[in-house]
Amino acid sequence: MQKTDVLIIGGSAGGLTTAISARRNYPDKVITLIRKEKQVLIPCAIPYLCETIGSTEKNLISDEILSKNNIELIVGEVRSLDRKNKVVNTIKEQKIRYEKLVLATGSLPVIPPIVGVNLKNVFVVKKDVRYLQQMLKVLEKAKNIVIIGGGFIGLEFADELSKKDKNITIVEMLPHCLQLAYDEEFCLKAEEELEKKGVKILTNNIAEKIEGEDRVEYIKLKKGEKLEADAVILGIGVVPNVKIAEDAELKIGQTKGIWVDEYQRTSDQNIFAVGDCAEKTSFFTKAPFGLKLASIAAREARIAGASLFNLKYRNEGTIGTFATVIGGVGFGVSGFTERKAREEKIDFVKQEASTVDKHPSAMTASSKIFVKLLFRKSSKEIIGGQVLGGPTTGEVTNIIAAMIQNKMKAEEIIKFQLGTHPALTPSPVVWPIMEAAEKAMGQF
Amino acid sequence: MQKTDVLIIGGSAGGLTTAISARRNYPDKVITLIRKEKQVLIPCAIPYLCETIGSTEKNLISDEILSKNNIELIVGEVRSLDRKNKVVNTIKEQKIRYEKLVLATGSLPVIPPIVGVNLKNVFVVKKDVRYLQQMLKVLEKAKNIVIIGGGFIGLEFADELSKKDKNITIVEMLPHCLQLAYDEEFCLKAEEELEKKGVKILTNNIAEKIEGEDRVEYIKLKKGEKLEADAVILGIGVVPNVKIAEDAELKIGQTKGIWVDEYQRTSDQNIFAVGDCAEKTSFFTKAPFGLKLASIAAREARIAGASLFNLKYRNEGTIGTFATVIGGVGFGVSGFTERKAREEKIDFVKQEASTVDKHPSAMTASSKIFVKLLFRKSSKEIIGGQVLGGPTTGEVTNIIAAMIQNKMKAEEIIKFQLGTHPALTPSPVVWPIMEAAEKAMGQF
Repeated sequence: MQKTDVLIIGGSAGGLTTAISARRNYPDKVITLIRKEKQVLIPCAIPYLCETIGSTEKNLISDEILSKNNIELIVGEVRSLDRKNKVVNTIKEQKIRYEKLVLATGSLPVIPPIVGVNLKNVFVVKKDVRYLQQMLKVLEKAKNIVIIGGGFIGLEFADELSKKDKNITIVEMLPHCLQLAYDEEFCLKAEEELEKKGVKILTNNIAEKIEGEDRVEYIKLKKGEKLEADAVILGIGVVPNVKIAEDAELKIGQTKGIWVDEYQRTSDQNIFAVGDCAEKTSFFTKAPFGLKLASIAAREARIAGASLFNLKYRNEGTIGTFATVIGGVGFGVSGFTERKAREEKIDFVKQEASTVDKHPSAMTASSKIFVKLLFRKSSKEIIGGQVLGGPTTGEVTNIIAAMIQNKMKAEEIIKFQLGTHPALTPSPVVWPIMEAAEKAMGQF
Repeated sequence: MQKTDVLIIGGSAGGLTTAISARRNYPDKVITLIRKEKQVLIPCAIPYLCETIGSTEKNLISDEILSKNNIELIVGEVRSLDRKNKVVNTIKEQKIRYEKLVLATGSLPVIPPIVGVNLKNVFVVKKDVRYLQQMLKVLEKAKNIVIIGGGFIGLEFADELSKKDKNITIVEMLPHCLQLAYDEEFCLKAEEELEKKGVKILTNNIAEKIEGEDRVEYIKLKKGEKLEADAVILGIGVVPNVKIAEDAELKIGQTKGIWVDEYQRTSDQNIFAVGDCAEKTSFFTKAPFGLKLASIAAREARIAGASLFNLKYRNEGTIGTFATVIGGVGFGVSGFTERKAREEKIDFVKQEASTVDKHPSAMTASSKIFVKLLFRKSSKEIIGGQVLGGPTTGEVTNIIAAMIQNKMKAEEIIKFQLGTHPALTPSPVVWPIMEAAEKAMGQF
């Protein structure tokens, strides 16, 4: 039987980062990573395969990072976990004995119970190179593409595919696309950008039936409309992949992810879980929640990788920071939106500021930037921020994340130790995060 | 005699931001801003007038922001200050009585005592529209341009002017350009970028004499070389403009700026000073220092504007965060460089990380990004960071500034609540600030 000190199941952001962090923290341990996939791709970039990246080959994560860090790689599929003997069994009857096990099994796309969902050319977004290659071939030829689900993945596919001469329709159940992530004004902006590019958006609408002989031909909507479709992308969400954990009777949390403690330990002290398969706890309320992002997976992985043999870092909860680009406009969010703060019955002050992301605006390729911040009324602490902007949107959102993580109050943000430059940032006179914080100070 | 509640002398980043902040904090006060200049331009963007912006008109700060905030504007020059009677006198014999006075008189370019410095076509970088228009005309026609001083301003002018068919030479006294701002590897990169664009860089060298009939024709260097020159730009630094303050016997600090307390108050409790004319205190050592940046001016202005009638925010000292772009590469710095940390005899751990600023690198227009961080050995607190990168360099440097301001330890940075996106940020697996922090943890 093969023996290893650390066994990691899963090779995407969570598994890979755990392996590297484990190596940095425990230079003398034997670390093994087992994954199903021969090749691993960057999951968040999948929509960009259609046009920007152009091929799956250019989106692969090289295994060099594993060998460089002296991490053994096994390509194989785990069938079961024998916790009592600390052994993992693969479907090829391989047995691997571990001291510490890390589950980084990710998530699986939700396949909705719609009639016709198994017809040819109906795709989910699988992190599988061959499957995606087939999907890209079909999308390349398709003229009429229907995307079911107006979340991130759906909108990013629509944005990419609209660069080609195709008829794209998004079908979204909720009143707005991206509604679970952003406040309404941001959702409207995203919809407007897509519509400018010719994408048809049908909100408050449900795909009732997928029709066709052996391949998809039409989508029938609940409201009666019938859409021509040569291909369908289902982007309605993902669920934690917890089969191995569940079979081994590890505790499963309220949001159907594997329950973990502050050190990413499962109900078995020798087993850790990170990323999409693990339940998260809110930074603000400590309540469980199910946000699934590669950035969160990597963060949890660094905590788990360090704490395997020696509890080092505690996870104080997840803020939730992410960004996307639609029609060339960046959309970022960290922490609470106004909608979520209301749901949580938090008394807050909100403020906004807008300017251009260079100064003066005559600098080459400047973009508008708009920031909306939320502060807890009782403490003046920043609890959320949303950003609309240009190429700096992601990192500006990360500045807000740093402020939230440090529980900065509005008056501390006013004193932010900002640096500026004409070609790189807005003017210091109106840098929007400080500007919004200063305006908010009058409202407490 | 005219009376006002708040009188602000100076209309650039410091004065303007003070006026807006004062208005936000004291809605009922009469606020007056007096400045010499009919029109105010964005000072940091002056080098970009040569090519990117193209004209001074496109670099003006509109006075609309003053009228919108109900701030009275007087265009006039202050001659003296009568502190006893709280009266300011202009050169046109206008008298203005104030309750609170804010000095935002900025800085003046250093004119070195070189023979020939007064010849025609020898320029300093003045924040004066007419002067700059004349300078731009001469630079436009000049074939051979010599820049004396390899600091920010000098390098930015060289970068801009090298886009045209001109022979540019930089003469720098120190072994490297930008040496006071960055560590050597960053200075070397900046020099390399300029040299690629054909700029000639002469370091360890001093301009001894400027020669010519009535206009400049040659620069004679101390080492003997003689450079042809149709125009010269002197970019060797600025000194605080403290004439009014000095004449009124306000306390002047060790770095020749106006001494101020934590609320930006001068030695007269009714007079505040902000920006280049005011002395700064180090965030780390509390020692006085003289860094002069528009972003620092705006920060001090928000503190002063809020504290005029009611002490609100304390200035805990200046970190010093700034960025530039040379040859399309962004250079950022916040807090200590390695050189400065050594000078201060601080025991530190340094680490570096590099990747691309999008993921995968096949995403459109990705740039390399390199981050170098310094942590205090005893506390693991981050005390400095330098960044080489693309368009996000400025805001990534601001993330580091937020971390320094919040005295984050390396282990907290490992748990940074990061958000990522393929088109906007590096991969979360290798996001360089977390990566450098994790590597540093092994060295404490």
